[in-house]
Parts: sequence; C-alpha cells; structure tokens
Amino acid sequence: MAGGTFITFEGGDGSGKTTLIRSLMDRLERNGREVVVTREPGGSPIAEAIREVILHVDNTAMDPLTEALLYAASRRQHLAEKVLPALARGAVVVCDRFVDSSLVYQGYARGLGIDSVWEINRFATEGRMPDLTLYLDLDPQIGLSRIEASGRRQPDRLDLEGLDFHTRVREGYRQVAAMFPERIVMLDASGDPGPLKEQVWKLVSARLESR
Amino acid sequence: MAGGTFITFEGGDGSGKTTLIRSLMDRLERNGREVVVTREPGGSPIAEAIREVILHVDNTAMDPLTEALLYAASRRQHLAEKVLPALARGAVVVCDRFVDSSLVYQGYARGLGIDSVWEINRFATEGRMPDLTLYLDLDPQIGLSRIEASGRRQPDRLDLEGLDFHTRVREGYRQVAAMFPERIVMLDASGDPGPLKEQVWKLVSARLESR
Repeated sequence: MAGGTFITFEGGDGSGKTTLIRSLMDRLERNGREVVVTREPGGSPIAEAIREVILHVDNTAMDPLTEALLYAASRRQHLAEKVLPALARGAVVVCDRFVDSSLVYQGYARGLGIDSVWEINRFATEGRMPDLTLYLDLDPQIGLSRIEASGRRQPDRLDLEGLDFHTRVREGYRQVAAMFPERIVMLDASGDPGPLKEQVWKLVSARLESR
Repeated sequence: MAGGTFITFEGGDGSGKTTLIRSLMDRLERNGREVVVTREPGGSPIAEAIREVILHVDNTAMDPLTEALLYAASRRQHLAEKVLPALARGAVVVCDRFVDSSLVYQGYARGLGIDSVWEINRFATEGRMPDLTLYLDLDPQIGLSRIEASGRRQPDRLDLEGLDFHTRVREGYRQVAAMFPERIVMLDASGDPGPLKEQVWKLVSARLESR
C-alpha cells in the first residue's frame, strides 16, 4: 500500500461530513487522483448483514460489549474487502467514520473504556490507521436539528438515545482528538460550508504532497 | 456468582458432546442441582442473528478476522443474557463449546494466532472463564463418519472444510489443553459412552464438592 492515502472523517450526525466528502472527492478527481469514497459497511454483503443486526431498533437487549465487537467485525470486513485493495493500488480512500467512532461511541459515551475498545479495533485493523482524520466539531443540538430539518432519513437506534448521549459523544471526540494530535485535526463545523471546504482541501493536499 | 459453577465441553463434531451433556444434566438434577444446559448462541435472538451471518454457506468472502470477532460477539451476548444470570443465582451452567473453540478454530486452525484471538475473547468474557472444561479427544475421521452415519443434520460451512482442517483442529485442542492444565481435562472419546459418562461425573462432582 505504498502509494495509497487513507483519510477519514469523524463527527456527530448533522456535522456536514457528507457535503465535505463530496467536495473533497470532486477536487481530488479534478487533480487526476483515483478516489474511493466509502463508509462502513460499504456495500460488502457480509458487513451489511452485521450492521443490520447492530442497528435494528428491536435489539434493545444488545449488550454494549456485543455492540463494540460487531462494529469491529463490520469494520474488519469493509477494510479487507474494500479499503486495503484500493490503498494497495495507490488510491486515495476517503472513509466516513472509522475506528475513532468506536473509541468515542462505545469506549467513551457508553463507558466501556477507550483502551479496551482500542484493543479489539487494533485486532480488527491489524494497526492500519488513517493517515489523516478530520474531526468536525459541532454542538450536538445544532447537529440534531439539521437532521430533522433535512428530513433525509428515519431516526435509527442511535438517534433515539437523546441529547445527553450526543453530548458525551462530543466530549469523547475531543478526548480522542487530544490523544492523537498528529493524525486528527479538529475543525469547527458550525460555520458556512465554503470556508470549511477550503480548510479540508488545504489539509488533504498538504498530506498528499508530504508523501 | 458465588455459588454458580461453569462447565464447558469441547471437541470436534461427532465427539459425543451431546450425549455426555444429557447424561450429566440428568445426574446433576437427580442430585437436586439447578442445571442450565446451553450452547452458543443459546436462544438469544441477537446472538442467533450473529450466528446466521457466520454460518451462512454463501459467505465465502468472510475474512478470518471478521469471523473471529463475530464469534466473540455472539459469545458475549449469550454470556450476558443467559450464562451470567444463571451463575449469579447459583446454578450449574453446562455449555457446549466456549472460548476454547475460538482459540482452536480461529486462533490455531485458521492461523490467526491463539494469543490474538484470546485478546478479543478476554474482552468478550471480561475474564469469566469456565471452572472446568472437558475436552473430548477423537480422530476427526471417526467424528465425521459418526455425523454422516447419524444423518442428524445437513453439513454446514465448517463441515465442508475437509479433513485437513479437522486434523488441525485436533492439534489445536491438544495445544490449548496443554496451556490450561488446571482447567481443561482431556478425555479419550473413541470408546463406549458408558465409562466416559462415569469419568465425566467423577470430574464434575469433585469440582462441585471443592467449592
């Protein structure tokens, strides 16, 4: 995977990841790069089947450790089927959420501990972490109201957790960002998308040039 | 879980686990014990859904690390929903296969390494290991011919792996048994069930009396 570059986006729902990823993809392609935009489970039938189990609204008896292991399993399958082959042929892979989401949601917000969730994710990734992670920091109340206003999808089990949970998610992201300062860049996602797109482009192009 | 005792049976398919477990259950109940006989996924709808993903014959693109994480997830859910509550009220829990199966099948036979599979299973079990494990050692050729002769079920994805795989499974079990000599007892499963039932009863009743 010498030539490939692995970039991930992180942040709560409604933080604008989708818009920024599309803009980045367009710009990379105009620069002649092969770009693979993906998100877990990423169209892998096995990873999709695992996600169906996780997100099913009826699964209220789901143990938090079970959930963390299922996220790690879905991640592994997506990585093996889609991300690693693309990196091996030199593509830029842009992934919407990755290991940090598990460290934050399961490790911090659900209280399993960032370290133990990292342990199973190190197994799942065999240590292949992103080259650059862009974390979109946003007040969760703004994020949730953006989702409702857009009406773009039905709320799932995670949405239903309420504002307290999403506030812990933001605290968790800030903690994980502080743990990996060389990999994770925190961006203020409350403003207009225009300047944010420029910031993302500067960070990504600098990372590509440094290789 | 002060009063509870956790007993597991291990061994290849056709080694006679089911017969021995039934006999043990009857004898424990005649002695006035509350017995919970189970096997993963053990009737937990979530653990069942996870197992459906693992065992589906079409899932030939399953990455070995994904598979190991799914077994750990199914195990966790079964443990949390069924085993731990029964141990907490003082029951004898008899489980057909547990962590050792993953150490052997994924760790040894598929080559992921016993140590790394143990890492994710330590997460899944939070260190709650069986008090006693009975490993039924048998030539896999005998085991497979017993299954075919009985016609008791359709072969699944694991059966289809062939004899080489099952030979590695036996090697793996012997290695894991040597790693945990105080917990795992190896029994010769090639003989008649009568004397084997007696051996099992002696080992279990000694374990119960020592508590």
